[in-house]
Amino acid sequence: MLAEIISIGNELLNGNTVNTNAVFIAQRLHECGIEVNWIQTVGDKPDDIRMAIDLAIKRADKIIMTGGLGPTHDDVTKNTLASYFHSDLEFNEMIYKRIKARFNKRGIPMPEENRVQAMIPRTADLILNEAGSAPGLIFKSKKKLIFVMPGVPQEMGEMLNKSVIPILMQECVGCHTSVHIFRTTGIAESVIYQRIKKALLQFSEYEVAFLPKVTGVDLRIIRRGTDSKNSEKFENLKNILYNAIGNYIYTTENLPLEAVLGKLLVNNKLTIGVAESLTGGLVQNKLTNIPGSSAYFMGGIVSYSNESKVKLLSVKKDTLVEHGAVSKEVAKEMAMGVRGAFHTDIGVSTTGIAGPTGATPQKPVGLVYIGLSYGPQTIAQKYQFADNREVNKMRSAQAALELVRRSILGLDI
Amino acid sequence: MLAEIISIGNELLNGNTVNTNAVFIAQRLHECGIEVNWIQTVGDKPDDIRMAIDLAIKRADKIIMTGGLGPTHDDVTKNTLASYFHSDLEFNEMIYKRIKARFNKRGIPMPEENRVQAMIPRTADLILNEAGSAPGLIFKSKKKLIFVMPGVPQEMGEMLNKSVIPILMQECVGCHTSVHIFRTTGIAESVIYQRIKKALLQFSEYEVAFLPKVTGVDLRIIRRGTDSKNSEKFENLKNILYNAIGNYIYTTENLPLEAVLGKLLVNNKLTIGVAESLTGGLVQNKLTNIPGSSAYFMGGIVSYSNESKVKLLSVKKDTLVEHGAVSKEVAKEMAMGVRGAFHTDIGVSTTGIAGPTGATPQKPVGLVYIGLSYGPQTIAQKYQFADNREVNKMRSAQAALELVRRSILGLDI
Repeated sequence: MLAEIISIGNELLNGNTVNTNAVFIAQRLHECGIEVNWIQTVGDKPDDIRMAIDLAIKRADKIIMTGGLGPTHDDVTKNTLASYFHSDLEFNEMIYKRIKARFNKRGIPMPEENRVQAMIPRTADLILNEAGSAPGLIFKSKKKLIFVMPGVPQEMGEMLNKSVIPILMQECVGCHTSVHIFRTTGIAESVIYQRIKKALLQFSEYEVAFLPKVTGVDLRIIRRGTDSKNSEKFENLKNILYNAIGNYIYTTENLPLEAVLGKLLVNNKLTIGVAESLTGGLVQNKLTNIPGSSAYFMGGIVSYSNESKVKLLSVKKDTLVEHGAVSKEVAKEMAMGVRGAFHTDIGVSTTGIAGPTGATPQKPVGLVYIGLSYGPQTIAQKYQFADNREVNKMRSAQAALELVRRSILGLDI
Repeated sequence: MLAEIISIGNELLNGNTVNTNAVFIAQRLHECGIEVNWIQTVGDKPDDIRMAIDLAIKRADKIIMTGGLGPTHDDVTKNTLASYFHSDLEFNEMIYKRIKARFNKRGIPMPEENRVQAMIPRTADLILNEAGSAPGLIFKSKKKLIFVMPGVPQEMGEMLNKSVIPILMQECVGCHTSVHIFRTTGIAESVIYQRIKKALLQFSEYEVAFLPKVTGVDLRIIRRGTDSKNSEKFENLKNILYNAIGNYIYTTENLPLEAVLGKLLVNNKLTIGVAESLTGGLVQNKLTNIPGSSAYFMGGIVSYSNESKVKLLSVKKDTLVEHGAVSKEVAKEMAMGVRGAFHTDIGVSTTGIAGPTGATPQKPVGLVYIGLSYGPQTIAQKYQFADNREVNKMRSAQAALELVRRSILGLDI
C-alpha cells in the first residue's frame, strides 16, 4: 500500500510554518507499515491543488491531505475537491449544530463565517472533528481513498489516529513492519558504511538508513512483512552489526546519550560533577534535560576564566603557565577538581578552542581535551574537531558524555 | 521568479526527520522576494527524483534540491542528475584534496568511500562546501537553474546564503524586498496582535508575520518593490510598533538575545557570572555560544545539590531550610554568591521546578525565580511557566538573559 501526503497552505511555502503535519503523518503511517512515497506541499490555489491530486492519484493508493478547510477566503481546499470529484456542496444540519455547540461552549456566538464549514460535498464521507470546527472528508475514486483533514496539528492528529489509521489498517492486510534503531557516536558515517556494506548485501530485505547528526550517526533498520524466520535473521544481522561497530553503539532505543548515561549512573549508584570550559554549560544542560537527573548530577562549574579554574577547581597555576588552559594536564586537574568540589564519584571536564578566535599555531580551532576522574584514575583524551563554534561545542559535549559511558562500562577508550 | 524546492531522502518520508531544510530555504527565498510555489519531498529513488525534476522544470524557473549527496549506497542524487542532464562524472582533484584535508584536519584517514564525492558531473558548476565534504552543484538547462546541496542543515545553510542566494539575486532584477525583524520576549502573540492590529490596517502594503518561538515572538515585516516613500512610511510603522510593544523588543537584527546582551556587556565594560539550578547550564551555554564571550563571561556554577549552593555560592543553610531551594530568597543569595565567587559586576541566578517531578502544592511545576545582583542592588523575579521540562528550562534561560538586559538598560522590571 502506497500513500502520498499533500500539505496545503501558503504559510508552508513562505517559510512561516514548519511542516510538522507531514512528518507526523509520515511517521504514523510508517509505523503501521504503510509506505509514504511522496509529499507535496502546495499553496492555497485551486489549480495547484488539482494538479497535486492528479499526480497523487497516479502514484499512490491512499492520499492524505491537510490544510485549507478553515472558514476564511483563502481556504479553498474543500471547494476545489468538491469540484474535482463532481460532488455538490450540501448543507449538513448535524455538522452545523456541532460547530454552533463548540462556540456556545466557549461562550462566544458563532461567527457567520463558520457556517460555510457545514457545507459538505455530497459524495464525501465525514470524519468528525473533536478538537475544532472543520470536519474531515473522505473521497473515494476508483479504489483510491482521499482523506482530507484540517491543518491545525491537534485536530489533524486526533482525526489521523482515531479515524484515518483504523480505516487504512482494515484495508492493508499485509501491513506489518519491524523497526530497529542503532545509535552510534564517535564513528563517521563513511566508516560505518565501510565496515558493514558487505553484510548489508546479505540482508537485502532489510532497509538500512544512515541518519547522521552532529551527535553521531543513527542506523535505522526496517523489515517489512511477517516472516517466521524474521527474528532469527534479525539476530544474525544484529550480531554482525555489533561485531563491526558495537563499540560505538550506545543504545538501541530512541534515547539521547545523556538518558542512556543517566540510567547507567543510576544503576551503578554513581554521582557526577562537570567542569566545563569550551562547552560552556552544554554538558550540564544535556544532563539536566533528563527528568530525575538530580539523583546523580550534583552540579558543576563553568570555568571560563583561568582565575576560576585555579580558585574553584584547584587547577595549579604552574600547570596553566606551563601547558596552557587547553591541555591534557589542565583537563585532568579540572576533572579531579570538580570531583572534589562536588564530592562525586566521577568528575568530567572539557577544555578546548571552540573558535572562531583563540587559535595558536600549536593549538588550532577544534582542539579539545576531555578529562575524566573516576575511581583511582584520572585521564584525558585529545580530540580534533573541524566545525564552527556551536558544532564544536556540541561534538565536544557528546564526546564528554561518551567518555563517561565508556569508562563506566570498561570499554576501550 | 518562481522557485521550487525538492527535498530528497527516505528519512523525510518515513517520519524520521522533520524537513527543516525546506522551511529554511522557503523563508530565505521569501525574504529575497522570490516566490516558492511548490515543495516536493521524494525518497532516494532515481525514478522519483527524475519525475520530480521533470515536474519542477515545467513549473518553476529555479529549482533548489537538497539531500542524497553523501558517500553511501542510498545517496543517489548526484548520479541521477548526472544522467538526467547527460553530464558524465569526472574526478575532480581540487575537491578530492579538500575532502582529504578535512579528514586530515581531524586526524582521521579518509575512507575510500568518500572518494566518490570528488566525482563531479562535467557540465555542473561547483558550490564549495565549507562545513562538510560533499560539494554543491549547479546545473543549467534552457534558462532554468538547478541547485543541488547536501541535506546536512549546516552545510546547506552556508551554501544557500553564500552562493545560491547571491546568484538568484543577480538574476532577479525585479526582486527587491525589505525585510525587517522585531524580536520580542516576555509578551504573548495574542497580546501583540491586540495592540497592533489597528495599526496594521493602515499599513496593508506591509506583510506582517507573527513567528512564535519558545524564546519569544518575532515579527517579520516584509515590503516588496522599491518605493521612494518606503523609508518614511516604514519609520511611521516602526514608531507605532515601538509605542505599542517597544518595551519587549530586544533587537531589530537577526540576533539571539545572548548576542544582544553580549554587545551590551562589552559596551558597558561589564562582566557576568551565572548560578544555575533548574536551567542546569543552559544560560551559560547560550552565553558561550557567542564568539568573544570570554571577554565578559567569567564563568558560573550549576548548583543542582543544596550542598553546592551552600559551599560554592554561600547560600545560607537557614535560608534553604526556611524558604526552600525554590524561593526568592535563595535566588537572591545565589546571584550574590556567584558574583562574589567570580568577582563579576553582575551575578544572575535561576532556581525553579522544571518538572515533571519535584512539585509541591505550594510550588507547582514551572515556578521559577530569577535572581540578579548588579551594582548596589540584588533582586529576584517570580515567573510561572506551564510547559514540559525542556521548554520550562528554555523559557527560564531566556527570562534570565532578558532580566540582565533590562537591568543594564534601566528598563522596567
